[in-house]
Amino acid sequence: MSAAAPVLAVGSVALDAIETPYGSRDPIVGGSATFFSVSASFFGPVRLVGVVGEDFPEWAVTMLRDRRVDLQGLQRVPGKTFRWAGRYDGTLTQRVTLETCLNVFETFRPEIPEAYRDAKFVFLGNIDPGLQRSVLDQVRSPRLVVADTMNFWIEGARESLVETLKRVDVLVINEEEVRQLADDFNIVRAAEKVHAMGPRILVVKRGEYGALLFQGKDVFAATAFPLSNVVDPTGAGDTFAGGFVGSLAREAEIDDRALRRAVIHGSVMGSFSVEGFGLERLQKLTQPEIESRFAAFRRLSEF
Amino acid sequence: MSAAAPVLAVGSVALDAIETPYGSRDPIVGGSATFFSVSASFFGPVRLVGVVGEDFPEWAVTMLRDRRVDLQGLQRVPGKTFRWAGRYDGTLTQRVTLETCLNVFETFRPEIPEAYRDAKFVFLGNIDPGLQRSVLDQVRSPRLVVADTMNFWIEGARESLVETLKRVDVLVINEEEVRQLADDFNIVRAAEKVHAMGPRILVVKRGEYGALLFQGKDVFAATAFPLSNVVDPTGAGDTFAGGFVGSLAREAEIDDRALRRAVIHGSVMGSFSVEGFGLERLQKLTQPEIESRFAAFRRLSEF
Repeated sequence: MSAAAPVLAVGSVALDAIETPYGSRDPIVGGSATFFSVSASFFGPVRLVGVVGEDFPEWAVTMLRDRRVDLQGLQRVPGKTFRWAGRYDGTLTQRVTLETCLNVFETFRPEIPEAYRDAKFVFLGNIDPGLQRSVLDQVRSPRLVVADTMNFWIEGARESLVETLKRVDVLVINEEEVRQLADDFNIVRAAEKVHAMGPRILVVKRGEYGALLFQGKDVFAATAFPLSNVVDPTGAGDTFAGGFVGSLAREAEIDDRALRRAVIHGSVMGSFSVEGFGLERLQKLTQPEIESRFAAFRRLSEF
Repeated sequence: MSAAAPVLAVGSVALDAIETPYGSRDPIVGGSATFFSVSASFFGPVRLVGVVGEDFPEWAVTMLRDRRVDLQGLQRVPGKTFRWAGRYDGTLTQRVTLETCLNVFETFRPEIPEAYRDAKFVFLGNIDPGLQRSVLDQVRSPRLVVADTMNFWIEGARESLVETLKRVDVLVINEEEVRQLADDFNIVRAAEKVHAMGPRILVVKRGEYGALLFQGKDVFAATAFPLSNVVDPTGAGDTFAGGFVGSLAREAEIDDRALRRAVIHGSVMGSFSVEGFGLERLQKLTQPEIESRFAAFRRLSEF
């Protein structure tokens, strides 16, 4: 492990409303860049690029700063912050979107501050693939470009997404999304097709079933941590990505060993995230807890 | 590893009809006891108790005998063999039952031959929980009783099933079934409730996502082997159980290490089973292939 290189994160910053069988919160701070940044901050410095409106709470800004998240790239503009409202069913695996108000996020154009442009680790959160490319146009020589996307872009902006993927090293997406992107239900064949699109590394998030890491023919399968106290899955995927990229940013070499450890670190962070609403659990999280759960993951899978 | 103790298997022996997007077979030899026995036979001797009709093919009897499966307990009676016909969808995860004809299986009463009654490892396949108890009444002092069941009995014969579970050491069951049995979607809490019913060990089969092993608070999570050539999932669960019990029957001590290895052996056998229709892949399987895939499972999960 070397000193962590700063990680550049671009994505949404939101004020969500969440209902689960275990309670509700409205508003609660959310957004892909937020979950990612808080998670990655446990591994090293983070530089956030996003946009919020006038209603974004000052305590959240302070909380991010306190966690070594550089907010020079966080635009604050007139209007309201992006809002997503959703309700989960009793299994916490299905959700309905009750409301999506893009607000200030609708006209968001990522502007990378000069001080961020030498970033070696870039995370492109789930935004328009064209905007993802505009971020890559503004950074100089990243060592690793990691991207997320979703069904909305796979269906509605496939050509643009394919253009972006040519410039991506690691694609981190959900299982159903990789099937949709590759048009193949079989995950091994789907991974081959994604490799052919550009990303040499593919991480498939499978929720409560864990994650798969594909590097060409080589596969690593991480199981999720069986938890009895899941209350809110919102942001778990971005929290996973934050642990994954944060872990890699402090490695001297991004080899197979580093990538496997990064998937476990992502899984560790995701497993904490779902134990509280929004960022509530991550805000209380400590380094010893992370190390202890990493060890528990080893115990969970060793034979 | 010591010399394997014989394993007693009780369950269905069937002639199935299977349709998948990759082809169809009608008839093809199936049944829980059949898949279990062929799988377990790669680890040591097996004693099968079941029933077939006059139409059961002689080549299948010879195949089982050649694989060290003792058929003294296989009743052959007038009538037709149990038949199940089903069709899988393009994902191979959903299936519809087209036909179920119990035939000679309808009046099946397991009779354990005297030579089988000292069996130390007993597998109770998915049959009426009352019949499962009648098997236990006939064996003398088993070292390990392993049982399977299904939603049909959980819904329709819960009290009888609960009686059986009091006498079971290891319950091997699907994820949706354990949720139904415990009336709890959360798998960790469901496992606690199953422990309270009797089984000190619970193995939860999760199909393409692998398996969980619960021993009280201790959990082991095995991932499934990502395969690009799955053609027929029929019997994969019983094949898993065969590898699991067969592996345990050759261990000197049934401790945590042995149980974890057994889950991997079960996963290895299940991963081969789905590569062919019915028993086709298992019939061609070799010991070096089993050892090679066991090593691949280690590589798959190590970090």
